[in-house]
Amino acid sequence: MSAQITLVRDGNDDVRELQTTTTGLDLFGDDRTIVAMTVNGEQRDLTRELVAGDRVEPIGIESAEGLAIIRHSAAHVLAQAVQAAHADAKLGIGPPITDGFYYDFDVEEPFTPEDLKSLEKAMTKIIKQRQRFRRREVSDDEARAELADEPYKLELIGLKGGASDDDGSTVEVGAGQLTIYDNLNRDDSVAWFDLCRGPHVPHTGYIPAYALTRSAAAYWRGSEKNKQLQRIYGTAWPSKDELKAYQHRLEEAAKRDHRKLGAELDLFSFPEELGSGLPIFHPKGGVIKREMEDYVRARHIEEGFEYVGTPHISKEELFYTSGHLPYYGEGMFPPLDVDGNPYRLKAMNCPMHNLIYRSQQRSYRDLPLRLFEFGHVYRNEKSGVVHGLTRVRGFAQDDSHSYVTPDQAPGEVGHLLDFMLSVLRDFGLDDFYLELSTRDDEGEKSTKFIGSDQDWEKATKVLADVAAATGIELVDDPGGAAYYGPKISVQARDAIGRTWQMGTVQYDFNQPAPDRFNLEYVAADGSRQQPVMIHSAKFGSIERFIGVLTEHYAGAFPPWLAPVQVVGIPVAAEFDDYLEGVASELRNLGVRVEVDVSDDRMQKKIRNATKQKVPFQLIAGGEDRDNGAVSFRYRDGTQKNGVPIMDAIAEITSAISDRRQV
Amino acid sequence: MSAQITLVRDGNDDVRELQTTTTGLDLFGDDRTIVAMTVNGEQRDLTRELVAGDRVEPIGIESAEGLAIIRHSAAHVLAQAVQAAHADAKLGIGPPITDGFYYDFDVEEPFTPEDLKSLEKAMTKIIKQRQRFRRREVSDDEARAELADEPYKLELIGLKGGASDDDGSTVEVGAGQLTIYDNLNRDDSVAWFDLCRGPHVPHTGYIPAYALTRSAAAYWRGSEKNKQLQRIYGTAWPSKDELKAYQHRLEEAAKRDHRKLGAELDLFSFPEELGSGLPIFHPKGGVIKREMEDYVRARHIEEGFEYVGTPHISKEELFYTSGHLPYYGEGMFPPLDVDGNPYRLKAMNCPMHNLIYRSQQRSYRDLPLRLFEFGHVYRNEKSGVVHGLTRVRGFAQDDSHSYVTPDQAPGEVGHLLDFMLSVLRDFGLDDFYLELSTRDDEGEKSTKFIGSDQDWEKATKVLADVAAATGIELVDDPGGAAYYGPKISVQARDAIGRTWQMGTVQYDFNQPAPDRFNLEYVAADGSRQQPVMIHSAKFGSIERFIGVLTEHYAGAFPPWLAPVQVVGIPVAAEFDDYLEGVASELRNLGVRVEVDVSDDRMQKKIRNATKQKVPFQLIAGGEDRDNGAVSFRYRDGTQKNGVPIMDAIAEITSAISDRRQV
Repeated sequence: MSAQITLVRDGNDDVRELQTTTTGLDLFGDDRTIVAMTVNGEQRDLTRELVAGDRVEPIGIESAEGLAIIRHSAAHVLAQAVQAAHADAKLGIGPPITDGFYYDFDVEEPFTPEDLKSLEKAMTKIIKQRQRFRRREVSDDEARAELADEPYKLELIGLKGGASDDDGSTVEVGAGQLTIYDNLNRDDSVAWFDLCRGPHVPHTGYIPAYALTRSAAAYWRGSEKNKQLQRIYGTAWPSKDELKAYQHRLEEAAKRDHRKLGAELDLFSFPEELGSGLPIFHPKGGVIKREMEDYVRARHIEEGFEYVGTPHISKEELFYTSGHLPYYGEGMFPPLDVDGNPYRLKAMNCPMHNLIYRSQQRSYRDLPLRLFEFGHVYRNEKSGVVHGLTRVRGFAQDDSHSYVTPDQAPGEVGHLLDFMLSVLRDFGLDDFYLELSTRDDEGEKSTKFIGSDQDWEKATKVLADVAAATGIELVDDPGGAAYYGPKISVQARDAIGRTWQMGTVQYDFNQPAPDRFNLEYVAADGSRQQPVMIHSAKFGSIERFIGVLTEHYAGAFPPWLAPVQVVGIPVAAEFDDYLEGVASELRNLGVRVEVDVSDDRMQKKIRNATKQKVPFQLIAGGEDRDNGAVSFRYRDGTQKNGVPIMDAIAEITSAISDRRQV
Repeated sequence: MSAQITLVRDGNDDVRELQTTTTGLDLFGDDRTIVAMTVNGEQRDLTRELVAGDRVEPIGIESAEGLAIIRHSAAHVLAQAVQAAHADAKLGIGPPITDGFYYDFDVEEPFTPEDLKSLEKAMTKIIKQRQRFRRREVSDDEARAELADEPYKLELIGLKGGASDDDGSTVEVGAGQLTIYDNLNRDDSVAWFDLCRGPHVPHTGYIPAYALTRSAAAYWRGSEKNKQLQRIYGTAWPSKDELKAYQHRLEEAAKRDHRKLGAELDLFSFPEELGSGLPIFHPKGGVIKREMEDYVRARHIEEGFEYVGTPHISKEELFYTSGHLPYYGEGMFPPLDVDGNPYRLKAMNCPMHNLIYRSQQRSYRDLPLRLFEFGHVYRNEKSGVVHGLTRVRGFAQDDSHSYVTPDQAPGEVGHLLDFMLSVLRDFGLDDFYLELSTRDDEGEKSTKFIGSDQDWEKATKVLADVAAATGIELVDDPGGAAYYGPKISVQARDAIGRTWQMGTVQYDFNQPAPDRFNLEYVAADGSRQQPVMIHSAKFGSIERFIGVLTEHYAGAFPPWLAPVQVVGIPVAAEFDDYLEGVASELRNLGVRVEVDVSDDRMQKKIRNATKQKVPFQLIAGGEDRDNGAVSFRYRDGTQKNGVPIMDAIAEITSAISDRRQV
């Protein structure tokens, strides 16, 4: 190999002569849209030297990797600012996260909003100083000596597998070859340093736009047994405009926060008395829940599924048979003792559906056999990730298992994907992409996944082919599969462009196997064959989907889902009876209608109904009564007067039965 | 008081002169329809002497008390026969139970059907011998000496509160003044004896008709931690005819056993892998479950209830607030550890509905507030009482709580009773009586019940008055109340005359109290008042009700509940398409229809459909096809030919929508 490197840009190879001290900065100059590089597949700082034969690719600031790097660098800037202001603040960890970053600190007092403002100013100074990031390899002992004042960092040094955080992510900070990143002043003196794997931007001036967003308490390494630290969240973007757009999305999201709307609209709550992640549905939330249950059950039956029912607890042994223990052990609640035997709350329904499958001899003529239930499952989510309805500890899955012959598998995967997408479209969600979660190609596969390489390949190919055939964007997610097989998940963008993971289709050749549930069917030739089982949930969880929909609709549920569909508002008390008459006609048609006969004035009643986001307000005064009519007032504030009662009823009932989105 | 006693017969007092040695036998002579007597309210042997001033009432053999006494005496006869045949058999307990008795023995080998036959013969001999029952009062030490060879009896001596059995009943055998009952031969020698409180019949010849029914294993004192004994069940009746009628009912019941029908009709099963008392619903059972859920939810909504949802686990503390811990502690599963806190599977939903009530300020205008849900609860039933679907460990209650002002309470109790009875009538259950469960007047009230005497009296009066107003037979059940208040339960007789406990209405003035959930409403005068909560379940549990209905209908569910409502049976394969056309019209109307296109011959298809108890078989051949008709075949074997398709469809759909019972 001659003294050359290969520079790859936009997929094209470009061979360059190598100088002895060539770095990434030499290749890309002062182009601040390039924040780091990939060398032979590994991310590196631009300041690192290249050697002959290297394949180098720039990491652009707009790429997912680039964004993570500027955010990670911004986290260092934040930590420097905090320690400058609070000399005794001890450092936790500070990783990039979706849309931003955080850093944890052990400090006496929680941070106030004023603290965040002054820290932002301090960060601006550091960024203007263009402090250079310098990487140093250190031995464990050197690291311990330099970080003698940082007890949390000391704990991380030498930690196998990195520190697990309370959002479940793993931060590999103290394993393998340790590195320290210094922030250097112009005179090369060290302004600040941190134990860190990098990479980072060349200097702090590469962080174009940033902001601190909020602070919150967080347990060290995500465990309630450890000390509570103070976490500061921030964000960073390639431009001020992008930062502003993100802040606008945050504001929109805050307005739509389902926990806030859930309280305002009296839909659901999260009583402290029950425990974290255990919601209760109030009567109005119960209406939505019931509509959703009825809808999704009816849809499953239309699609050939059979409704079954299984208990919520079981002898623990069942989950060893399925493999959920030990492979999914951390996600399950601990056992409870029944007559001296360990029992578990179920975290999934598949083992029990397998018992239904096995309760009869099955023939190829019975397949596909499709079982469906509202499976109430319990997952021991860490308290740090529990969030409203979207991440709970107990929830109802609209869970199905299709048992098919291997030949039927591609068709059934396609059927399930079509079904799932059509369900989402009924809720106005029609901007999707698919994610294909596969086994890791290397590393942990033996401890995290079961089954042969050949079976994994075959199953992955089935999913990949079906996903490709939909024509929908497909994103790879290596290592994200369940222990028993690969999966496709549907990611849907909501009304303000956020992406939510919705339903999944999982291919399972392991649970039916002889050493597990030993499922069989008699094939056409009389031989006994093993079916493939395909797991699928369409909403995912009913609770979570209600949370997502609350935000997607900003609480203004479409008529078929709205807890109260119509409010009658009399112009004066003398029209109460007239509107009650209209209301009772609507009620007979199954419409959820209230008439506001309180002492409030009409304008107040309109305001109340508007605040409650009721789809239709029917207002009536003397002229309406004389003409057998009502006035419509819609949620957008528009009004339509003198509508004959029959027309009003027709408009309302068809909006409901058509599942109209407005 | 002169030397007189009062003999009460049929409610009339009859004063009799007393001789020094007058006994019950002297009063009633050899009338074997009188088996014991009540003296001053206490049950006694007829052989006991009376004293001046006693009020004596005969206990007739046909009364509940009389039946229990002949059955209890028969249990002694059984035990004597067992110990005669198995000298080393050790005695457990031998109480009367509904429709019979049992006795437990510690023996090497389980009893075989042949054993039971020869034991029956031995009993016949003992009964022909007219062995007299003699009662002896003994001290604890004397009893211990006489029963030195009976380890289980020794354990019972001096036991406070008696022994608790595994069916939850308490057998008071070894507490207070001990008595031994001897069985005497003609020469007054002791044939056999037992530690027993009595009373008994005068001699074994008072047992007119008896039989042994089955044997089973049973843990000593109902605990899995104790040794397993062998239980023999038997029955005794006032006449051979009544015994025969009972045996016929047993056979009928065996044919209707829902566990047997559940397997034959592929409705549900009880997999060993899950654990005792945890059923799974197969697709066909799932259809029934869904219909029942839809039905009872719709009915609740019609009756003004609001559908809510609550989780299945909670911090344990919640159940201390409600009082379920410690008062209902034994019925709950043990805690599990979540983040270092004890959590419990809920055994009831009321505490969580109280949280929904409390989530908003309530005004008297909001009352009655009626909350309803399918509450999935878990009860640690002893393994000895778990039985099919009728006694399970995890089930869904159709559970409601009505929150009312005290003034509204009687009206709401009446509303709930009417609602409950109308639900039962929809299932052809229209032969009821009511049971009023109240607090014990004395004894254990301080440890088993909470709340003031005054509140209990008021609540009991409300229930008693409403129950009386229904005109339905009312039976008292003192001591059967929940710890928080009295209840009415509906007992319904099924198609073969057996009584099942159905729904309940419970009056609760305790959980809303300030030291518990502190529930309030703002009264019309602006003051804060405490609501009454009224617990009610209509089916009781959906699982249990399905079990009861399976037996009530003997698996021949009415059309609206039948998993498959119609089977099409072509006379030959050439008519498959014709019947598929009829089936698809029915399917479009929501009818569950199958066409049997298998290779079986027509007669076999008819037999299969009949065995599956499908309400309607539609048979079609050439003539039918030519005329656009079908032949109806009903479950009773009758047939109706040449029915035009439109008429057939109308007959089927109206049978379903009218919930016709046939």
